[in-house]
Amino acid sequence: MTEKRITQKDLAQHLGVNRSTITRALKNDPQISPVMRQKVKRLAKKLGYHLDPNLSQLMAQIQTKDPSKQIRTLAVWNPMEHPISESDTRLNYDFREVFAGAKEQALTLGYQLEEFWQGTYTPKRLASILRHRNAQGLLMLPSYKTYEFDCNLQRLSVVSLDYFTTHAFPVHRILHDTQYALEFTLHKAHELGFKNPALICPATPSKPTAEIIRGTFESIYTHYNSLTRNQKFPYFIVDPDDSRQIKRMVRSIEKIRPDHIITYHCHTLEKMFDNQLPENTPVFDFSLKEPQDKGPGIRPPSRAIGACAIRKIISMIHTGERGIPEFPETTYIRGTWETP
Amino acid sequence: MTEKRITQKDLAQHLGVNRSTITRALKNDPQISPVMRQKVKRLAKKLGYHLDPNLSQLMAQIQTKDPSKQIRTLAVWNPMEHPISESDTRLNYDFREVFAGAKEQALTLGYQLEEFWQGTYTPKRLASILRHRNAQGLLMLPSYKTYEFDCNLQRLSVVSLDYFTTHAFPVHRILHDTQYALEFTLHKAHELGFKNPALICPATPSKPTAEIIRGTFESIYTHYNSLTRNQKFPYFIVDPDDSRQIKRMVRSIEKIRPDHIITYHCHTLEKMFDNQLPENTPVFDFSLKEPQDKGPGIRPPSRAIGACAIRKIISMIHTGERGIPEFPETTYIRGTWETP
Repeated sequence: MTEKRITQKDLAQHLGVNRSTITRALKNDPQISPVMRQKVKRLAKKLGYHLDPNLSQLMAQIQTKDPSKQIRTLAVWNPMEHPISESDTRLNYDFREVFAGAKEQALTLGYQLEEFWQGTYTPKRLASILRHRNAQGLLMLPSYKTYEFDCNLQRLSVVSLDYFTTHAFPVHRILHDTQYALEFTLHKAHELGFKNPALICPATPSKPTAEIIRGTFESIYTHYNSLTRNQKFPYFIVDPDDSRQIKRMVRSIEKIRPDHIITYHCHTLEKMFDNQLPENTPVFDFSLKEPQDKGPGIRPPSRAIGACAIRKIISMIHTGERGIPEFPETTYIRGTWETP
Repeated sequence: MTEKRITQKDLAQHLGVNRSTITRALKNDPQISPVMRQKVKRLAKKLGYHLDPNLSQLMAQIQTKDPSKQIRTLAVWNPMEHPISESDTRLNYDFREVFAGAKEQALTLGYQLEEFWQGTYTPKRLASILRHRNAQGLLMLPSYKTYEFDCNLQRLSVVSLDYFTTHAFPVHRILHDTQYALEFTLHKAHELGFKNPALICPATPSKPTAEIIRGTFESIYTHYNSLTRNQKFPYFIVDPDDSRQIKRMVRSIEKIRPDHIITYHCHTLEKMFDNQLPENTPVFDFSLKEPQDKGPGIRPPSRAIGACAIRKIISMIHTGERGIPEFPETTYIRGTWETP
């Protein structure tokens, strides 16, 4: 028993509209009204219409006969203080590496990347350029200050690398898996025979983040060591610009004598201790930042984060996912363990 | 100035191999030796070869002329106690919903799903069936016990929904964003004027998970309330089968009189309190499980988790990602807030 395959033409006839309306409605094209898009999708579901993956690939081929569209552009919005090429290595990732990873992945899949830096472009100007070029993909780098992003995302497939704008701006995000990094670092230190850590969190970029790191660490640690509720491990959330806080911490560390220190930016730590870290106290860094840092610790997978973001954007373009998603996703990628 | 475009034929001539070897090496086909794959990729990079996205789509079309391959199968491995249709609603998600969401997304993209339940199939048998059908995608449901998975993943694009096998089996995973759920639930309770929570974690599925939830919660809570280190909020990690632990908790709650309770499975909670929850103490559930639960709380996005996993697998098939990934990704999806 062979059933007749339902086509887009059938759907168009049913609703008395053009076939192109059906195609665009199924792709969530914002030029089709939300009401019509829902109508089309309901009917498609009811009649059991589905894409033929081969046919849709062929259609994509036919639709892009225009040679100017042969290489497609993905935009990278950079709201940071500096262009990527001059970016600060003390930020969450090495953004030159992120960009290199993204670029390589984009090229492999037939796309090119273009950076739009806030020092040169406004979000409005970015939006207008993307519209003119019919560009569909946007990668947003993190901002370390809040800012207005006056750019209509409805037509774009967007992925962000931002830790902090989640509530205001819930698009899909790609990040370093710091929870795994914490767990693995603690596990490694334990394996090497170290039992009494002190956790030092420079309160950058933010105190809530430091608090969450502290809480997660403490709970993993409690699990490892079967601590009772009153046994605590020492932790310090310290503003690296507050010399009184730093002095207090240094004094405490001298008194407590932990057998290792866990932190997430060993360079800041060294500066806070004025390069006088207590002797024989190894430092484990679960988020190595500077290229010259050589562990022990976990390095955020900067290149892989860039590449993963590009794969996600291109997959969204293929399946017609645009605008603010109904169910925002946060993808965490594991870093690699480095020893000196 | 137009440069000649580098083609796969050029790469083949350079290395003195067949063009099909180049194609397969670029797609990470395990039938090509790792050495040759690396050789091809290095040369491709050196000469600036990149895929033409349109051409590769067309090639995919030509390669699948065989009508038996027109509808492609993705496998779902179910290591749980029951087949999906009879799955236990007290598990992390409603797996019937997960499967429905996955099925719908697969159909939309031209694939069909097939369940392989451990009660009927061994992993070895699964592997052999997938090989015979030339199936490329595998979705792994969570196991709540450890088990041997004797199935070569090298040829497959795999995504798992498992919380616990991360160290043994680091494939990409899709999960509910419980950290967001915790944060949002606390925020909502706060907004409604509740200030003194007690956190109750049934120690299922595992104590370490409960500990991490406790730690994360405490740190978010500390941030909200600017607690000092000695002010603590009350929490209970309780085995729901241990009546002594339960009695102790019930007595504590009666003494402490929190103005709300935060938990992650209100049905277990009700059972522990023998349906005698303290009066006027609302319960917020950051992971609603049973279909009849109607908040206040967050419902895990079961359908969206299924759909996201399928999109990920298909995108991996398209880009040739197979086997254990170099950088495992964990994707967390936000649930939705429900009120009664």
